[in-house]
Amino acid sequence: MSGARTHLFRTGIATVSLSGTLTDKLDAIAAAGFDGIELFDNDLIASPLSPREVAQRCADLGLSIDLFQPVRDIEGVHPDRFPAVLHRVRRKLEVMSELGASVFLACSNALPDAIDDPELSAAQLRAVGELAAEFGATVAFEALAWGRHVDRVGTAWDIVRRADHAAVTLAVDTFHMLARGDDGAALAGVPGDRIGFVQVADAPVLDMNVLEWSRHFRCFPGQGTLDVTGVVAAVLRAGYRGPVSLEIFSDVVREADPYVTARDGMRSLLFLEDGLARRASVGASVTVAPPVPARTDVTFVELAAPTGSRYSELLTGLGFRVAGRHRSKPVVRWRNGGADVVLNEQPAPGPGATALGLVAPSVPDVAERADVLLWPAVDRARGAGEAGLPGITSPSGLHVFVSAEPGLTDDWHTDFLPAAESGSGGDWLGLDHVDITVAEDELNQEISFFRTLFGLRPENPEEYMQPHGRLRIRALRAEKGDLRVALQVSDTGADEPRRYGITQLAFATRDVVAAVARARADGVEFLRPPENYYVDLDARFALEPGVLTTLREHGLLYDRVGDGEFLHAYTLPLEGGFSVELLERRGGYDGYGSVNAPVRLATQGR
Amino acid sequence: MSGARTHLFRTGIATVSLSGTLTDKLDAIAAAGFDGIELFDNDLIASPLSPREVAQRCADLGLSIDLFQPVRDIEGVHPDRFPAVLHRVRRKLEVMSELGASVFLACSNALPDAIDDPELSAAQLRAVGELAAEFGATVAFEALAWGRHVDRVGTAWDIVRRADHAAVTLAVDTFHMLARGDDGAALAGVPGDRIGFVQVADAPVLDMNVLEWSRHFRCFPGQGTLDVTGVVAAVLRAGYRGPVSLEIFSDVVREADPYVTARDGMRSLLFLEDGLARRASVGASVTVAPPVPARTDVTFVELAAPTGSRYSELLTGLGFRVAGRHRSKPVVRWRNGGADVVLNEQPAPGPGATALGLVAPSVPDVAERADVLLWPAVDRARGAGEAGLPGITSPSGLHVFVSAEPGLTDDWHTDFLPAAESGSGGDWLGLDHVDITVAEDELNQEISFFRTLFGLRPENPEEYMQPHGRLRIRALRAEKGDLRVALQVSDTGADEPRRYGITQLAFATRDVVAAVARARADGVEFLRPPENYYVDLDARFALEPGVLTTLREHGLLYDRVGDGEFLHAYTLPLEGGFSVELLERRGGYDGYGSVNAPVRLATQGR
Repeated sequence: MSGARTHLFRTGIATVSLSGTLTDKLDAIAAAGFDGIELFDNDLIASPLSPREVAQRCADLGLSIDLFQPVRDIEGVHPDRFPAVLHRVRRKLEVMSELGASVFLACSNALPDAIDDPELSAAQLRAVGELAAEFGATVAFEALAWGRHVDRVGTAWDIVRRADHAAVTLAVDTFHMLARGDDGAALAGVPGDRIGFVQVADAPVLDMNVLEWSRHFRCFPGQGTLDVTGVVAAVLRAGYRGPVSLEIFSDVVREADPYVTARDGMRSLLFLEDGLARRASVGASVTVAPPVPARTDVTFVELAAPTGSRYSELLTGLGFRVAGRHRSKPVVRWRNGGADVVLNEQPAPGPGATALGLVAPSVPDVAERADVLLWPAVDRARGAGEAGLPGITSPSGLHVFVSAEPGLTDDWHTDFLPAAESGSGGDWLGLDHVDITVAEDELNQEISFFRTLFGLRPENPEEYMQPHGRLRIRALRAEKGDLRVALQVSDTGADEPRRYGITQLAFATRDVVAAVARARADGVEFLRPPENYYVDLDARFALEPGVLTTLREHGLLYDRVGDGEFLHAYTLPLEGGFSVELLERRGGYDGYGSVNAPVRLATQGR
Repeated sequence: MSGARTHLFRTGIATVSLSGTLTDKLDAIAAAGFDGIELFDNDLIASPLSPREVAQRCADLGLSIDLFQPVRDIEGVHPDRFPAVLHRVRRKLEVMSELGASVFLACSNALPDAIDDPELSAAQLRAVGELAAEFGATVAFEALAWGRHVDRVGTAWDIVRRADHAAVTLAVDTFHMLARGDDGAALAGVPGDRIGFVQVADAPVLDMNVLEWSRHFRCFPGQGTLDVTGVVAAVLRAGYRGPVSLEIFSDVVREADPYVTARDGMRSLLFLEDGLARRASVGASVTVAPPVPARTDVTFVELAAPTGSRYSELLTGLGFRVAGRHRSKPVVRWRNGGADVVLNEQPAPGPGATALGLVAPSVPDVAERADVLLWPAVDRARGAGEAGLPGITSPSGLHVFVSAEPGLTDDWHTDFLPAAESGSGGDWLGLDHVDITVAEDELNQEISFFRTLFGLRPENPEEYMQPHGRLRIRALRAEKGDLRVALQVSDTGADEPRRYGITQLAFATRDVVAAVARARADGVEFLRPPENYYVDLDARFALEPGVLTTLREHGLLYDRVGDGEFLHAYTLPLEGGFSVELLERRGGYDGYGSVNAPVRLATQGR
């Protein structure tokens, strides 16, 4: 745990970011080690605890209440209605002083009848600030991205300046700023002591109404693609020393376990700090965690293959040969050229029975980075003389082992004794990519795992139809190194069977035509695309007749982009849905042949 | 079934609108009685059936192939690349002639490099048209709402006119037109015989990227809120006599049973025809179905109350009294003033155990309208001398019975013998609204049921947070009459228990303070909002101290809009989650107090 760590900022999270009752939320937030909370008024209103009891509970848990969000639409209001605003504010300030909180957040007016007059807004904010000062509190004014007139941080800052009151400050929210196209530069000239609060949220870039985007798709820093770090770096450079607080809401988080959410949140702040510490401009001298590995390569895949499974038969047919046996466990290493697959013949322990072996120097750095980022270690016994492979469990239950490079101590190969019948197998190039199927509500976390720990870069989301639903694919690849994973979410209705974990291995070959022909001769069955597929290929690519004949004869799928070509084939799925893809890349083709996903899915479905 | 019915147009549906393999889809489409299909190329490509075999299968099923969609981005293409386009088109025309189809759909170019030159597009369309003519086919050109340059039907028509070739026609798609703000008037001046094909789809109005909106949220006419009827009326007025074909895709439909989808689709075309037949401008002399009832009032609610259930105890506590017993079944009528609840003491037959009794003249018309619109009748035995109450089963399994007005034959009251202990019970006004909880994938269909059969008007979607997820509410109300239903979808993760059907009854009272006080004295337990709720009420509404004291004392929730006030209270949920709401409307308040949903849900959750 990170309890003893010194943070670059006070860590906070809004109660609206978690599911459950207020007491559930507070317990989960404290367990994750946060310094403070933002209290969402609806959580208080629905709670049987009085404000004083909430304050006491927070104190007992070591949490401060850093922000209260009790009022909306307090500026740009018709003067006739402003006394009612002050009444609301006064009542809420009374509650706040019982809570022991001293900052309250006021969002820009989003009502259709809001008045567009910066002087009026400033005067009303000043009146609210004066009232707040009576209670020893301050107000932090935030530009909602969908505010009626104030929707940019610069506009909000202009009004705060005009209000000219010590108790009126600016609230910075990374989502609202980045959603409107602002970045850290928009804060130029804002003194750090005039920033009253900083909220952080990330999001995937989606072209949709910003209110809907905000409500349903916010995520923790590192799970989306907004430059949250840049904005936080700007506020720290400006001299802000207050809390940095997570304000997330999404359809996924609303249904999740609050303890898991709180831990995800703390991890995202650690990741944010790690990014900040690497920005010279922040001037931070601390090191949060070792950096992401200089390169990440895949070195083996482990499959649970209990007695009776047909994996060894499939591997044999594909030209793999036993290359070694584990020193102490019923675990067998199979090899075909540069491709290694490890079959674990122990009784399958259920989900999480699959593992990925990576080479990612340095091993101790990866282990420490995982620890700092709260990614849990694999719980297992290590035999005497075995390599020290740190194992990390991904959110979906995948085990990721990190090995030293060949020849070094803690190289995974040293755990295996060469088999008597040992041979190199065939001449395959290696593992090209791995398909990992995850549950819908685990996708963001699984992306976060590969991104925060190994620095993998997520590619654009893809979506394909299958006969009974959708298949969504999110591929990630190492910036340096050969690791590529394709995370898959299969939405096929409640009745279809689910299988999670590594569901497909794609191997690169030098000559996929020969590889498929040999495997087929050795009894491996492959998917056969229908004849209509080849008619369509001809229409799309005007292929040479000889090429088309070869593809058809061997049942290969095909794609072309520019001068790059991609030829691939799929084994028939084993019971449980596992299959192998053989592929050949020509002329620098860099994709995955995803255009062929619908025909593959339909053919697999038969 | 509608097999023998004469339609105002040829009925069609795109294979992309259903889940499953191509053969599954064709069987389901034929079973629903469609005249023809649009064949989606990916369905053909993925099928093991050759084009000739598909054609034969369609012929065997009595389906024509009215449209083929094999090519995209064929106009606005750089001249260097146009020969490749013609190659693609020629190959697909060969496939089309094996299919026996004669119209192919070409969508406007959506690629980033599309060229903005109407003359170039027209010349390329003309070349494609000439090629099509060699095969005895025509091309129908459609403006995609997200076309790069051609995104309005008027622009597409301009290009079709410039192409000036008999084999180049205009395709009309209601979604693409209405999504861009066009309506039937945009087709003024387009001759009916220049319209090559008409596709229909509806959608809820959502403020989002139109491509995402189209991909995920299209629905059948009558399930959304676009004026599909207006566009189809315009094409019929113009003299178009070809197919009207459903092209729907949504996240829900992709996972649904294709037979259910096909039936929903056929129903939506019947509803569309019904709407058209009522538009004098179409000049249609046919009557598709009797009109929606002149008014729809609720007259009773039936609950499954097997031995051991606590419903009768709850009703007694609420001041209901037994008013009658069914002539032949263990079914008891309870009454409180104008409110009637029927408890069915037969062993609960599972879902669908709840029913709504409506008065909606005329009864035979409603029954016939349900039959025409393919809403299934309730399967049940009718005893001698019992009222003939047509019963219709909604998609979620709710039984809706339609009764004649009091005093007429087939008034439901006549099925009940007055109870010896009979009395009027209290003085409640009646049932205000009914909460019906449905599964997420049934919401569109349930809306369609109430809308197409009774003409209920859907209100805006609402969404609230509950402790472990979201609650989405879609209320509908009768244009005339007192029937109001609130359809609810509860998204609370896979682990939470689900209960569907009528989950809450809301009764209107003259004096809710007195009603709650009396019921509480008689042992009924009500939800108690926390004290924090009343502090917040005071902040928001600056209530008179006496009013606030009354609300607090009786545990009432409160809302105010303008001069209208709403006071309400909820009984503690019975096992299974059922509860009763008591409410009082003052000063014309017309909503449901939804603003109080979060505090209610949080309090219920404890």
